[in-house]
Order: sequence, then structure tokens, then C-alpha cells
Amino acid sequence: MLELVEQLRAGNRRALARLLSYIQDEHPEARAALAELYPFTGRAHRIGVTGSPGAGKSSLVNSLAHAYRARGRTVGIIAVDPTSPFSGGAVLGDRIRMRDLAGDRGVFIRSMATRGSLGGLARTTGDAVHALDAAGFDVILIETVGAGQSEVDIAREAHTTLVVEAPGLGDDVQAIKAGILEIADILVVNKADRPDAQNTVRALKAMLDLGRSQAGRAWHHGRLLDQSETPLHAEPDGEGWQPPIIESVATAGTGIDDLLAAIDAHRDYLQRSGSLARWERVHIEADLAARLQQALLADFVRAVGPATLRTTIDRLARRELAPSAAVDQLLDRTNHQAH
Amino acid sequence: MLELVEQLRAGNRRALARLLSYIQDEHPEARAALAELYPFTGRAHRIGVTGSPGAGKSSLVNSLAHAYRARGRTVGIIAVDPTSPFSGGAVLGDRIRMRDLAGDRGVFIRSMATRGSLGGLARTTGDAVHALDAAGFDVILIETVGAGQSEVDIAREAHTTLVVEAPGLGDDVQAIKAGILEIADILVVNKADRPDAQNTVRALKAMLDLGRSQAGRAWHHGRLLDQSETPLHAEPDGEGWQPPIIESVATAGTGIDDLLAAIDAHRDYLQRSGSLARWERVHIEADLAARLQQALLADFVRAVGPATLRTTIDRLARRELAPSAAVDQLLDRTNHQAH
Repeated sequence: MLELVEQLRAGNRRALARLLSYIQDEHPEARAALAELYPFTGRAHRIGVTGSPGAGKSSLVNSLAHAYRARGRTVGIIAVDPTSPFSGGAVLGDRIRMRDLAGDRGVFIRSMATRGSLGGLARTTGDAVHALDAAGFDVILIETVGAGQSEVDIAREAHTTLVVEAPGLGDDVQAIKAGILEIADILVVNKADRPDAQNTVRALKAMLDLGRSQAGRAWHHGRLLDQSETPLHAEPDGEGWQPPIIESVATAGTGIDDLLAAIDAHRDYLQRSGSLARWERVHIEADLAARLQQALLADFVRAVGPATLRTTIDRLARRELAPSAAVDQLLDRTNHQAH
Repeated sequence: MLELVEQLRAGNRRALARLLSYIQDEHPEARAALAELYPFTGRAHRIGVTGSPGAGKSSLVNSLAHAYRARGRTVGIIAVDPTSPFSGGAVLGDRIRMRDLAGDRGVFIRSMATRGSLGGLARTTGDAVHALDAAGFDVILIETVGAGQSEVDIAREAHTTLVVEAPGLGDDVQAIKAGILEIADILVVNKADRPDAQNTVRALKAMLDLGRSQAGRAWHHGRLLDQSETPLHAEPDGEGWQPPIIESVATAGTGIDDLLAAIDAHRDYLQRSGSLARWERVHIEADLAARLQQALLADFVRAVGPATLRTTIDRLARRELAPSAAVDQLLDRTNHQAH
């Protein structure tokens, strides 16, 4: 076994930190270590925390971590900053807000930024979750900023996704909610001591009722097998999970017990309904698809060679060839070489 | 030539609408039509419009469209709603706000939603831009809601990316800005008649000055060739494009002339510096990489067969095999079959 893996499994925090850096830097060592750690994964409960900017996600993550620690559970936290895709720097830096958790060996916090590569965020986050899982953390909190594709990617990594909103975030944010609700297992109205909190709760309830008619969460990303799957969060008899709305004031610790109870209930539901096993398979399949795509393209580029690719790109740039025809031609070429 | 293509090239709006629906539905007809239309693409100026929720992006797009029409240019608008990845429904619907542009044959507006498939948003948007380009629109405005990966995807489709902010959008949004600034060719402070507008302008200026030390926009997504490219928006002598900050009040039409002048200046810069040709090649290469990945995976799945894949997924689920080892085994298997 690799020394790094041995140390990490023995609870060495510096080994874990090193592996997470390797993962972020896409260092070759990461691949070998993750392969060795794979048998020790699949135990942690993965909780995604997402929602509108300004809703207080970081405070909520902080409160959740304290609450889990009070119950004797260990907590890994990954704060994803998909906001700086080009520089690769984590905008929120060393998460100064979580300073009060520092020194607690039952907590490990890491900020991650994406490098802007295709699917890079999802891959790196997924690998980081695996590392924390193999290191033995009971609960892994994955926090993300922003809205859109990044949320969807994060939701894929989580067993239970919390969508955090706050009162009075405006109309445009309302529109975003409609989309984000579909990834929510639990809705949190944070800053619930504000006077207009009940309006937000009512609006979310109305949106949830509207959404009831839909088929539930479906996962179509990167599937390898075209079998018709039951939607992940619907039970066979059609009685799926109904996302509860929890009110909280994270900075005061209010509502955190309710939130923990809701998370536990969702975890029970996932196990009881068989959704957890289904989630696991879909997740594995999508990950395998992404890895295969990357490996197949790398092999293909080696086989075809840069000269042919450059010629093809030239012809595409001159509009002599359409992209779909280019793919057909390139694939034909390698088939002929194989014969 | 396909009838649909012929009609579209002749200016038939219903044919264009049909093709856009085919693109959204991933209908096989779309692929053939886009291939035939490819020679007619590459003429439009593609302008991405992104930024924080509530910044007034839709009003700005509306004003820009009117201004271009007043100058005799035709305008295609794609409003991307990456907010409803699972239902596939466009949240903002038929863009009621743009009702005043309806009836103008020099304008075509389409709302698009992603289906949540891996890279689906970027692909569908790219195809839709191609369709509008081939239909002869001079300017294509691509508007997106939200923050994060979707913005990055959209920026890849645009020659000129506008990042729209408004005064007083809060601290958390500040953090997002830091990331989003890196994709901005032009910064717009909309709602500039608000009292705190100058604070926002100053904050953006400070962030831009900070960012000057960086190497400029780099594009690492899905590259096929590993050649060391000059960063896209940097001139050979290191004097790149400096994003200007434009103040506007879109609802009153204020600042729109300045914005158009800035867009023209950026377009001139792209042509003068050779960046436009470089953009074109990088864009073509990334698109080809994504198409090849998809085709290679499909071929591979057919060659390996569902039984082997299912067994592999079973072994992964039982943690008997690590994902990287699974990929190695699967690729070995097909190599042996070819021998």
C-alpha cells in the first residue's frame, strides 16, 4: 500500500491534506491513492448545501458541523467555489468564518476551486469526497456558491441536497428557485427571524405543490446503459420523498435540530426505499462514463496523431467540412487502420 | 439540400423555429441540417450577456436589440435558462418582457433550457447559435441567468462577453464577481442612476486592477492538441484588451450607445490582434473534442456490450474494483477483441 494511503487511513491529517492538494492539482499520485482508497469508501453520508448567494450557506454549514460534533459524529467539509474557473483560486480562501472549528480533530475543512476544465468541478469534488469518505468522516458537507450547472454537479455528489434560501432575495432569484427546487431534498429558509420570512416559506410551499405533478428527480447524465430506471427519489408506488421546509437562523443555532432530524429522515427514506442503492449505481455509472470518455479520447488522439487533427481543424475553420462529418471521417480513419 | 435548410436560408422564420426545436429535442434531423448549414456560419458577432441575478440583463438585451435594429443590423437572441435542468422547461417562458420586439422580422428570440445532460447546455446553445448564424443574423445575443459553470460555458460561445452588475447586490455577490470578471470583455454597471452606483464602479475598477497581473483568458477545455497557445485575449506584446466599465440604465436606454461602441471596439481588437481567428480554432477544437468523446463512448458501449458493463458496475458497487482499474480493464478487453 502507498505510504500516503496508509497514513491517511491511520488518521494522519497532513496525509489527507496532501492527497486533496494532489487531487486539485491533478497530480498522478492522486489517481493511485484514490484507487487504493476505493474499498474504504461508500460509508459517509454526503450532504450537499446550495442556494442563492446571501442566503447564509456558510453559517448553516458551520452550525451543522457543530451540531454533528455535539452528537459525536466526525465531519468533513468541502467548500466548492465555482466562481473562479480560470485562475483556479478559491475566492473564499481559508474560510475564516469557520475559525471556531479549527483545532477540532473531528472536523476537516477544505476549499476547492474548479480549473474550468470540462466537467472538472464535478470530478475534483467527487474525488475529494472520496478521500474524506475513505479517511473515515461520518458526514461530508459539500457547500457550493452560485446557481446553475455547478449546483447540478454538486447535487450529483450528494445523498441529501439542502437548498438554502433567505427572505427577500428578489424576483430574479425566484426564477432560479424554480429550477433549484428540483434538486432539493430539504428546503431551508434561513434568516427566518426576518419579518418577511413567512412570505418566502409560502412561496416555496406553492412552488413545491406545483412541482408535485412532476416525475421526481431523474438522472440522465452520462449514462452507459439505456435501461429505463425508476426516478431516483420516487418509491415504486409513486409515493416519493416530499421535501420539507425547515426554518433556521444559522447564526443563532435556531432550527438546526429540526434540520438534523430532517436529514436523518431523508437518509432513512433513501435506505428504506432502495434509493440509496440506486443512487450508488447511477453515480458509479456516470463516473465510469466520464472516465471512459476521457481515456478513449486520449487513446484516439494518440492513434490519429496531431497532424491529422490539425488538418481536420483547418478544414472545419474553412467551413469545408461540418463537425459531424469530421467525426465520421476521423472515426472511419482509425477503423481502417485497425483492419 | 434538405427542405428545412433551404427554407431557413431563404429567410423562413418557421423553418428556423423548427430547427431550434429539433436542436432542443436532440432530434436526428437537427444533426443533418446543422451539417448542411455549417458552410454558412462564422459571420455573426456573438455577444454573451451574463451577470448577477437582478442586474437587469434582460432589459439590457432588449435595449441592445433595439439599438442594433436602429442601425439596420438584424439580431438573434438566445435566452439560456440553466435553472431548470431536470424538467427542461424554460423558466422565463416566452420572454414577455421582449414583447415590443415581436413583429420585427429583423429580430428572432428563443428561450432555451438545458436538459441536465453532461455538457448539454453548451452543446445545445452552440448549435442554436450556429442555426441563427446560418440564418443570416448579424448579431447574436446570448443571455444567461445565474452564476458558475453555465456562465463559463456561455462565454465559450461568445466573441464578446458582457458581465452585467447592478449597485448593491451584496457581499456574497462580490465574491462571485471576482470569478466572473475573468470572463468579462466588457463590464456593465446597470441601474447606474442608483445612488450607490459609483461604489460599484469603484469596486469593479479595483478588482480589474488586481486582475491585470493575471495572464488573461486561457481556454483549457477539451483541448485535442497540447500546443502551448498564447492566451486568447492577450496580444503578442503582452498588451491585451482592457475591459472597460460602461454605466447604463437599460430601461431608459441610457449608456446603450457607449456600450455599442465598446462592443465594436472589442470586435475590432479581436480582428486586429488575431484573437478572433484563434478563438475560432480553439472553439472548433473543443467542439470536436466533445463530439469525439460522445461518439467514441457510444461505439465503445456497443463493442463491449451491456452485460460486461453491468458486471463492471456491480464490481465497482461492491468496491472490488477501483474506477481507474475498471477503465483499464475495459479498454484492455476491447484491445484484445481487435487483435
